[in-house]
Amino acid sequence: MNKTLACLVVAAIAMPAWADEGMWTFNSFPADKVKSKYGWSPTQEWLDHVRLSSVRIAGGCSASIVSPDGLVMTNHHCAHSCIAQLSTPKKDIVKAGFYAKDGKDEVKCPEIELNQLVEITDVTKAVQDATKGVEEAKFNDLQRAKIAELEKACATSDDLRCDVVTLYRGGKFDLYKYRRFQDVRLVFAPEFEIAFFGGDPDNFMFPRYDLDVSFLRIYGADGKPAKQEHYLKWSANGAKDGDLTFVSGNPGGTSRLLTVGQLEATRDVALPLSLTRLGEMRGMLTEYGNRGVEQRRHSEGMLFGVENSLKALKGRHGALADRKFYASKVAAEAAFKAKINADANMKKTYAGVWDAIQATTDKSRDYRKAYAALEGGVRSDLFGTARTLIRAADEMPKPNGDRLKEFADSRIPQLKQKLFSKAPIYDEFEVALLTFSLTKIREDLGADHPVVKQVFGQRSPEEIAKDAVKNTKLKDLKVRTDLFADGKGKDKIDASKDPMILLAKAFDAPARAERKKWEDEIDGPLRKQGEQLANAYFGVFGKSTYPDATFTLRLSYGTVKGYLDSGVEVKPLTTLGGAFDRATGRAPFALPKSWLDAKSKLALDTPFNMATTNDIIGGNSGSPVVNKEGEVVGLVFDGNIQSLGGEFGFDESVNRTVSVHSSALIESLDKVYGARRIVEELRPTGGTKAGGK
Amino acid sequence: MNKTLACLVVAAIAMPAWADEGMWTFNSFPADKVKSKYGWSPTQEWLDHVRLSSVRIAGGCSASIVSPDGLVMTNHHCAHSCIAQLSTPKKDIVKAGFYAKDGKDEVKCPEIELNQLVEITDVTKAVQDATKGVEEAKFNDLQRAKIAELEKACATSDDLRCDVVTLYRGGKFDLYKYRRFQDVRLVFAPEFEIAFFGGDPDNFMFPRYDLDVSFLRIYGADGKPAKQEHYLKWSANGAKDGDLTFVSGNPGGTSRLLTVGQLEATRDVALPLSLTRLGEMRGMLTEYGNRGVEQRRHSEGMLFGVENSLKALKGRHGALADRKFYASKVAAEAAFKAKINADANMKKTYAGVWDAIQATTDKSRDYRKAYAALEGGVRSDLFGTARTLIRAADEMPKPNGDRLKEFADSRIPQLKQKLFSKAPIYDEFEVALLTFSLTKIREDLGADHPVVKQVFGQRSPEEIAKDAVKNTKLKDLKVRTDLFADGKGKDKIDASKDPMILLAKAFDAPARAERKKWEDEIDGPLRKQGEQLANAYFGVFGKSTYPDATFTLRLSYGTVKGYLDSGVEVKPLTTLGGAFDRATGRAPFALPKSWLDAKSKLALDTPFNMATTNDIIGGNSGSPVVNKEGEVVGLVFDGNIQSLGGEFGFDESVNRTVSVHSSALIESLDKVYGARRIVEELRPTGGTKAGGK
Repeated sequence: MNKTLACLVVAAIAMPAWADEGMWTFNSFPADKVKSKYGWSPTQEWLDHVRLSSVRIAGGCSASIVSPDGLVMTNHHCAHSCIAQLSTPKKDIVKAGFYAKDGKDEVKCPEIELNQLVEITDVTKAVQDATKGVEEAKFNDLQRAKIAELEKACATSDDLRCDVVTLYRGGKFDLYKYRRFQDVRLVFAPEFEIAFFGGDPDNFMFPRYDLDVSFLRIYGADGKPAKQEHYLKWSANGAKDGDLTFVSGNPGGTSRLLTVGQLEATRDVALPLSLTRLGEMRGMLTEYGNRGVEQRRHSEGMLFGVENSLKALKGRHGALADRKFYASKVAAEAAFKAKINADANMKKTYAGVWDAIQATTDKSRDYRKAYAALEGGVRSDLFGTARTLIRAADEMPKPNGDRLKEFADSRIPQLKQKLFSKAPIYDEFEVALLTFSLTKIREDLGADHPVVKQVFGQRSPEEIAKDAVKNTKLKDLKVRTDLFADGKGKDKIDASKDPMILLAKAFDAPARAERKKWEDEIDGPLRKQGEQLANAYFGVFGKSTYPDATFTLRLSYGTVKGYLDSGVEVKPLTTLGGAFDRATGRAPFALPKSWLDAKSKLALDTPFNMATTNDIIGGNSGSPVVNKEGEVVGLVFDGNIQSLGGEFGFDESVNRTVSVHSSALIESLDKVYGARRIVEELRPTGGTKAGGK
Repeated sequence: MNKTLACLVVAAIAMPAWADEGMWTFNSFPADKVKSKYGWSPTQEWLDHVRLSSVRIAGGCSASIVSPDGLVMTNHHCAHSCIAQLSTPKKDIVKAGFYAKDGKDEVKCPEIELNQLVEITDVTKAVQDATKGVEEAKFNDLQRAKIAELEKACATSDDLRCDVVTLYRGGKFDLYKYRRFQDVRLVFAPEFEIAFFGGDPDNFMFPRYDLDVSFLRIYGADGKPAKQEHYLKWSANGAKDGDLTFVSGNPGGTSRLLTVGQLEATRDVALPLSLTRLGEMRGMLTEYGNRGVEQRRHSEGMLFGVENSLKALKGRHGALADRKFYASKVAAEAAFKAKINADANMKKTYAGVWDAIQATTDKSRDYRKAYAALEGGVRSDLFGTARTLIRAADEMPKPNGDRLKEFADSRIPQLKQKLFSKAPIYDEFEVALLTFSLTKIREDLGADHPVVKQVFGQRSPEEIAKDAVKNTKLKDLKVRTDLFADGKGKDKIDASKDPMILLAKAFDAPARAERKKWEDEIDGPLRKQGEQLANAYFGVFGKSTYPDATFTLRLSYGTVKGYLDSGVEVKPLTTLGGAFDRATGRAPFALPKSWLDAKSKLALDTPFNMATTNDIIGGNSGSPVVNKEGEVVGLVFDGNIQSLGGEFGFDESVNRTVSVHSSALIESLDKVYGARRIVEELRPTGGTKAGGK
């Protein structure tokens, strides 16, 4: 890691992006830049088509529409929670895989929402005017109210979702209007063994051999597959070394525009806290799974998420701990400041912004632990449900603009989907999670913190958790519906003696207070300061570069390309045969029986996984890789280990997007799974031409 | 933590230590400084007496001799492993406590070795001459050989132990000659509930209410209590606010003399790795304990160790992450460098040393993970035994100076004590630890590392662990004795088919190679560079300050004193009654039944725990606190949370040593435990005068 990062060139701030760098918004794609480098660039029509063929999984992934009948392609790990929720002790489809041989066999995912980006409107002036000249402490409230107003006006029905997106950390605000789909059904998933072949050891590694795919389908209000005007066609042969590739998806977040002081706090405070806690959760969850087969089934989804975060955060921390990389960020900031200081007007307006950000950042170091513990410290579905019910009763009677943002009118459909989900709840696991969470809250706040004393009293974390989980009625959908009462449940909540409600209530006032403190004293000021810094940035560099990622639709370009890893050449394409070579028969390197059985039928030289220079980050999982014709040539599921530093800067020499090659998808659907229905739907004209090269 | 650390004054490098700072060696105690501040200072006779009354627990703690019959006082947590090893499923004396009503009831601890420091000889010239002018790569080998030679010449019998101690990171070498005691028996231990009242939440906290004590006894070769010429007498009333106090013990290590580059690597590489891994172990061990009562009993000692390390390392990391504290270290180094550069001769000799240390430190960042994984990555007693046997067979036939240092003649008695220990081994726990360790080694090295491929083959970590633990014969003392063969077991080891031997053997060559690389390229150069830096330091500041801690006997001075914690006054003494106020009846805040039953008999205003300004660190646990008369007034068991930054610098305003007050020891021994035999032995003249104030 050190060696590769040492060569990282941080381009985001100090120089124009000539590398295949950038997670570009669809309304400011640098067609000229692509044209000059590759001799080809997408038309507006191409951009619109790819945008409308892309869908976001609201819970945190990307996907694409791949047939006129609403077939959606994403990763297995993006649908993992649905697949697990649809499993039972007798039929574990995470383990066994799933294939709906017929349309009527497709099963609804309890908590998946898809968003198709239909319109982008610039609302910068409206948002910035609402906070013009106001003091920092009021900034957050006023901005949130304006955003809620804009979103409500836009989301005229429940099947529309509107989000105001903060770009350049406050320099630009765009209103994203999405079509919202909540009836999404599972069509196909392979066995977990091949979807996550190599497990945590191979995660973020390349070469790689994963069939990390699942297919879903969008259904309409009529209960039938929803016809789609825009969808991606399938490439006949997929991509080969050197081909131009585009990735359309939703990178979750990057920190390329942070100040050095913010990076320092990330390196020294936020990341060490997260790493230590994630490490502990990983140890706990791994060993919890040893309680038994069912307990492993209940907990493994969370374990994989925790392990994935842990590895990603280690990579990020490693980038900031790298002396040369960090020095390059320091140098870039110094150069930026020098340009500001060289212009008297800009100096007067902007020179103070770094100190202001530093002061806010210093304060955030002190506030972080209590805020995280009280507002985000409990990992338990039932506790989350109780908190949502309590807050809904308080918030929903308020005017839209005054509510906590997750209770704004435009957010209610998503909230209801989760609140009224039929996904199973596992008591034993809930007790374990709640016990763990309460123990950590006591640890983070200290045993003498007034909230701890008040909530815990004489009881131990385990006693509290057992009582609340065992005796709550919130597992009953009817009880939840009754307590929610369409946002008018205040009296019922006040009267409730449900122990989970009482527990969540005991935390609620102090949690709200910490959140308010954070929003008023950290978040608001940083938004105000971010606006200033962005303007300084535009003043020096213009608007020719991309904003940090915001879990909204972006397009990146690149090529299929290998790289040097510590001097060793890594080729950009692996083959199906490579998976058989790598298999040991033991988890996480065991191939499923279906693959072992099908080996003789498979074209083993079919490209399996693929590395490209596209600039992506977590959230892009499930994104389609498309060629110049807008056809699917791959399915993004990972980045290589060198891509983890991409949080802070892009290094084209080694940063790689990792995808499943389109040919491997067809070859395995056809020969391993006999999933003819899907193959025909993906390539209706040509039948199978697997193994194309 | 931030607020208090922000005021830290880092005195070690830049200024003379006027505060109660310093872990002073007994041969350079700053009597003048103490005299000028407190109007009193110890005589040489006083120092000799206290030194000879102090004993080190070789495994990592401090202790003192407190009766002419060899009674030894230390912490419960310092004897925890012995107490756990002497427990059985039917009689868990960690839980129930232990009191030998009669001498014949005292039970031998399987693995405790005590060291009494009888002589210190300056061997600086001999050690430094051995490496004069040699290249860095040879430095470690030559120095180690010279040290082995000096130690062997000194340790003329097995009941002597001699260690050459590296002071000032290479500026001074002293030969410490100890009397070694290996027949050490358990006399008394309270219940774990009161020994560690408050558990992890209260660890490193103050106010505090812990009876963290145990009593051991030194036995002679004749199987009788070993008579002692030097022992500490008991203070009639203990210490009160403002009293002068001395702590004589073995601080494990500090990093006050590290360069800024080394601190940076500690903050950015070493500590984050440790925190993440310790977090994971904590999660695993906590949940492992949920498997059942016995599993909890087997694993809880390690869990407490891990939790203790985790909290301590969080504190250290917090100190280095504190912007003001870190800036003060940067400023101190800059001032030091400026003095070097102001003198042409010194500049010529020393100005390059920082760059040299930086280069070694940079290299250590790259080497650390593989070295730690292969040489220190396995936590399993059986694996450790196998490795010791394999290496003993290879090393012991070599000349003394050529061996790995733990096989030098002077170290063999300690090695044998561990190797031939009768402590119980728990198969299920061994499997869990070995599985965890192997999984982490694979993670740290990567699944494609040649060592991983060779050792694992097709097997999973769990398969390997189960096979090795279940089928090894190393649990049998006779088998271990036979394979060791007094250091001549090479043929037997080579012929062994024991799966644990085979497993350890598979790791051995690569582990040795990583260790050799580390010793030649990191450790040796740092020792050479450390010698230069120390000489530069002596050139500027003279020899008037103390060296970093080295787990050797040190004396620190201070007073009983409260402090301000975020503006709130914390008094230096708690009372027995406070424990009853704090108790909730639930772990870790449950008092044992013996205490609840005895409450009415206890003088509740007896001082319980005590805060003093003595400068200590981990390793000092179990140290006696003595007054001017050399009498016991307390028993060190902890530092407050602000003391954790003491790794890097001492801040007298808030850094506090935490002890059990001598009066609480007598009061509880007498009234709770009826341990008259011990009370009489501690205070033979006066009977009980508990509750003295």
